[in-house]
Amino acid sequence: MAKNAFYAQSGGVTAVINASACGVIQTARQHKDQIANVYAGRNGIIGALTEDLIDTSQESDAAIAALRHTPSGGFGSCRYKMKSLEANKAEYERLIEVFKAHDIGYFFYNGGGDSADTCLKVSQLSDSMGFPIQAIHVPKTVDNDLPITDTCPGFGSVAKYIAVSTLEASFDVRSMSKTSTKIFVIEVMGRHAGWIAAAGGLVEDHNIPVVILFPEIKFDKEKFLALVKAKVEKFDFCTIVVSEGAKNPDGSFLAEQGTRDAFGHAQLGGAAPVVANMVKEALGYKFHWAVADYLQRAARHLASKTDVDQAYAMGKAGVELALQGKNSMMPTIVRTSNSPFAWEVGAAPLSEVANVEKMMPRDFISDDGFGITASCKEYLIPLIQGEDPPPYKNGMPDYVTLQNVAVPKKCSPFELKK
Amino acid sequence: MAKNAFYAQSGGVTAVINASACGVIQTARQHKDQIANVYAGRNGIIGALTEDLIDTSQESDAAIAALRHTPSGGFGSCRYKMKSLEANKAEYERLIEVFKAHDIGYFFYNGGGDSADTCLKVSQLSDSMGFPIQAIHVPKTVDNDLPITDTCPGFGSVAKYIAVSTLEASFDVRSMSKTSTKIFVIEVMGRHAGWIAAAGGLVEDHNIPVVILFPEIKFDKEKFLALVKAKVEKFDFCTIVVSEGAKNPDGSFLAEQGTRDAFGHAQLGGAAPVVANMVKEALGYKFHWAVADYLQRAARHLASKTDVDQAYAMGKAGVELALQGKNSMMPTIVRTSNSPFAWEVGAAPLSEVANVEKMMPRDFISDDGFGITASCKEYLIPLIQGEDPPPYKNGMPDYVTLQNVAVPKKCSPFELKK
Repeated sequence: MAKNAFYAQSGGVTAVINASACGVIQTARQHKDQIANVYAGRNGIIGALTEDLIDTSQESDAAIAALRHTPSGGFGSCRYKMKSLEANKAEYERLIEVFKAHDIGYFFYNGGGDSADTCLKVSQLSDSMGFPIQAIHVPKTVDNDLPITDTCPGFGSVAKYIAVSTLEASFDVRSMSKTSTKIFVIEVMGRHAGWIAAAGGLVEDHNIPVVILFPEIKFDKEKFLALVKAKVEKFDFCTIVVSEGAKNPDGSFLAEQGTRDAFGHAQLGGAAPVVANMVKEALGYKFHWAVADYLQRAARHLASKTDVDQAYAMGKAGVELALQGKNSMMPTIVRTSNSPFAWEVGAAPLSEVANVEKMMPRDFISDDGFGITASCKEYLIPLIQGEDPPPYKNGMPDYVTLQNVAVPKKCSPFELKK
Repeated sequence: MAKNAFYAQSGGVTAVINASACGVIQTARQHKDQIANVYAGRNGIIGALTEDLIDTSQESDAAIAALRHTPSGGFGSCRYKMKSLEANKAEYERLIEVFKAHDIGYFFYNGGGDSADTCLKVSQLSDSMGFPIQAIHVPKTVDNDLPITDTCPGFGSVAKYIAVSTLEASFDVRSMSKTSTKIFVIEVMGRHAGWIAAAGGLVEDHNIPVVILFPEIKFDKEKFLALVKAKVEKFDFCTIVVSEGAKNPDGSFLAEQGTRDAFGHAQLGGAAPVVANMVKEALGYKFHWAVADYLQRAARHLASKTDVDQAYAMGKAGVELALQGKNSMMPTIVRTSNSPFAWEVGAAPLSEVANVEKMMPRDFISDDGFGITASCKEYLIPLIQGEDPPPYKNGMPDYVTLQNVAVPKKCSPFELKK
């Protein structure tokens, strides 16, 4: 007999996580004999714990289709990591209570590394607590740090956004450098890994002088300033891509030793102004700086078609794995060829995914530590291929906001641990 | 007998100033009987003064056509304001020397308010210094502050970029607000006028709570914080759009950094972190902030089709005015209908354009000073209509970089005043 499915979005959202949701729900709707309905967690796993479930069957086919071109988390996401079974058994018992009450037999969790760990724990409920459930993790993270899969949905679109934005701003600076700005600094996401910063390096093939500050490379101020000076002397301008995770030799973030605002308060965040002021002080060049922040991961208008297709495919494959009776798995992207780029869907056991962080290979970063290598470009370029613009209405993207109708509650209230 | 034309880009560049260049050059190429060749100033008017001219006839028709979809200034721009004839006669004499040597009879200057003033002075060379020249100003400025014309090419695309980016980031925050970020601050350009900030207000029609800080409105911290609090209590999140020109009650910029550009204007940047920290201190909400900086004015990938069409039309009309024997004029955009939006090309005498700054009408800003009115939306929405994506190649926009071949020099060197 058909069971219901639970689907939740977890952690920082992306331009394409809703494309995965679309893949999950559209595929489930094609198999009503096995999946009666998809209930989404309002604000992620919190929706399961508080029994705040969204009845996706109330959404029209058109609304679900529109998720494919809508950025952000359509059902709400959350930053909430479930502790281990031993540390917080009450939460797992609560999940079982809610899942039982709503006849849920499938658990689809759409997130990054922390979520993979949660999903693994849920997948073990069957054994550990005697509750039958199939838990499938649907990969998502702009950080691109999940293992096994060639890339993580969300990353390709951020990479495209950063590559294109860096190119455009560099063209701007190039036109102005004679009498004005010579240094443009763009700060990008990536606290632990420099995948996103690496994407800025793609402008080098467009004849733009670029220096990258990776979180993986110890910051050498002297070498950095010498390189920037050399580039300005050759090109009359230089673009700098700095990862928010770039660190001083003592391990502190560049962004921490920051500037002060008009009120004398230390500014939180802001590696870009720190780097820009450092260059100005040492070399005297006029600068501009940008901090892309959420713009980079929300920019569905500039999404990579490859990324959108892969995000959708991961949602679809997640449901198909469940329909095949699988548990504790994550669908993956398998690159089968670089040129022409080709990929197919694979699968990995969650036990091999959870708590493993994929770092940038050292040979993706140039020897001097300030650029990317040919291997890195060969890896990145396929991921930004293709455009998939949303429909526009009255000059703006026609993004969908779902109704998000609540499923009537059946359980008693539950207090979340703070 | 056909004379040559001089064309230069001036001041901050935009996503569509090259579309105007395309309009100038393509139109001139159709009238070789009257305009023998177009020489572009390398880095703007500095190229004229230093006799650093670019021979645009060396560029293929395809390269010139590609300017239409390429952001930035293809020939280089500059921040260099010519003084009055009385204060620096040597520079005007030098212009005449260079123009005579290269048989230049037409002067097309593509810029904003300061450039309109320079263009006016050049247009008077005929009377004041006995040198026959027709000077036409081609309007451009993201600041949207030129008078008479309905809008300035460059503004519509920034407006679209800010509206779309604010919408996308707001969707992101809305998904995360339950456990994470509740306040998103985006800082936008606009030193004196809040036109660009106003564009952020367009997200209100997409059910996004937004508070705008305009340079025109004296900052009232108490009222601001109360409004943000009310919006968060209602929506669980709030988006704040802050103009780089937003000022404290004492007249200092929220973002004051102390450095000044070549025109003596204070160089701004960093109002967003100031505002974000202010909200955090008073209300405790978790925040994120972005500074779009050059990304906003370089984002040709998201240009407004209306803006691109108007930018091209202004370049074309500039040449047509010259061919009709006009001097000291600027083509303008005349809005003839809001719904459906319709516009045509007009013209204004430069004497009525130079040194006049068009501010936001007070009735475009809501009574409380933190939002935009229906009249403002009626004005803005037509300007962001339509998309005109560039061609893409290998995942990146296929922007053109011109060869910019120098015209052989005929004059002696000239030292620029510092």
